[in-house]
Amino acid sequence: MKFKSKKRQFLEIRQKEKHGTCRAIMVKINFQDKFSKFSEHWTPKVIAEMNDYQFKLVKIEGEFVWHNHDDTDEVFIVIEGKMFIEFEHETIELNQGEMYVVPKGVQHKPYAEQECKVMLVEPKGVVNTGEASGDLTAQNDVWI
Amino acid sequence: MKFKSKKRQFLEIRQKEKHGTCRAIMVKINFQDKFSKFSEHWTPKVIAEMNDYQFKLVKIEGEFVWHNHDDTDEVFIVIEGKMFIEFEHETIELNQGEMYVVPKGVQHKPYAEQECKVMLVEPKGVVNTGEASGDLTAQNDVWI
Repeated sequence: MKFKSKKRQFLEIRQKEKHGTCRAIMVKINFQDKFSKFSEHWTPKVIAEMNDYQFKLVKIEGEFVWHNHDDTDEVFIVIEGKMFIEFEHETIELNQGEMYVVPKGVQHKPYAEQECKVMLVEPKGVVNTGEASGDLTAQNDVWI
Repeated sequence: MKFKSKKRQFLEIRQKEKHGTCRAIMVKINFQDKFSKFSEHWTPKVIAEMNDYQFKLVKIEGEFVWHNHDDTDEVFIVIEGKMFIEFEHETIELNQGEMYVVPKGVQHKPYAEQECKVMLVEPKGVVNTGEASGDLTAQNDVWI
């Protein structure tokens, strides 16, 4: 039976062991489909894992908090819209089809004047507000 | 002087130490701009590093070789066009705005009927043909 091949069953089991829920890894991920599943801002949702890294989607609007991540670089990829990342001495603008790597330890503040759809890539377990906690600290490991 | 702030100089030095050449990390990456810098197929070019992982762009057309990566998952993100990944028991189709995580150890063969622009994410040092070497094995660590 093709749909429930041994390979698929194996992969489902492997993913089940990994996440505690059954996730068929043989399913592709469509960004717009995933974005349609939530509307709140500044709450990254996990869509995929590779090794110990996670790919997360987030909708942003308004200003985030100044923060840094002591132990890891952080990747921003703009899927739709425009965002800015403010640093101590400059601000960069990111549009659809552009990415940026914030080096570990560097203070930054993301913001968007209008809603912007973004993909983040970072190690599993990274807290969105880094060393700065507060109202904008989001729950980790929320899959969609 | 804003353009050569201490932070920028620091980052340039940090990147210089990392790559042996001076790369200002405070520069954003535009996918289409990077794709315009090469035309050959099946030769991934590095555009960014985060921690020990690399983001690579590749143009693909025709069939690749069957291979797997024993030690790592591999991420495919389609930036433009359509591609397929053939597995033992099924084939998945990936279009623009879609991604897929090939689990480590799983045999797969990417192909595209027409040129497709793809971003790969994988640990630094991964060889494109995995355990299968041959004419399509590309040089590693080629930055654009």
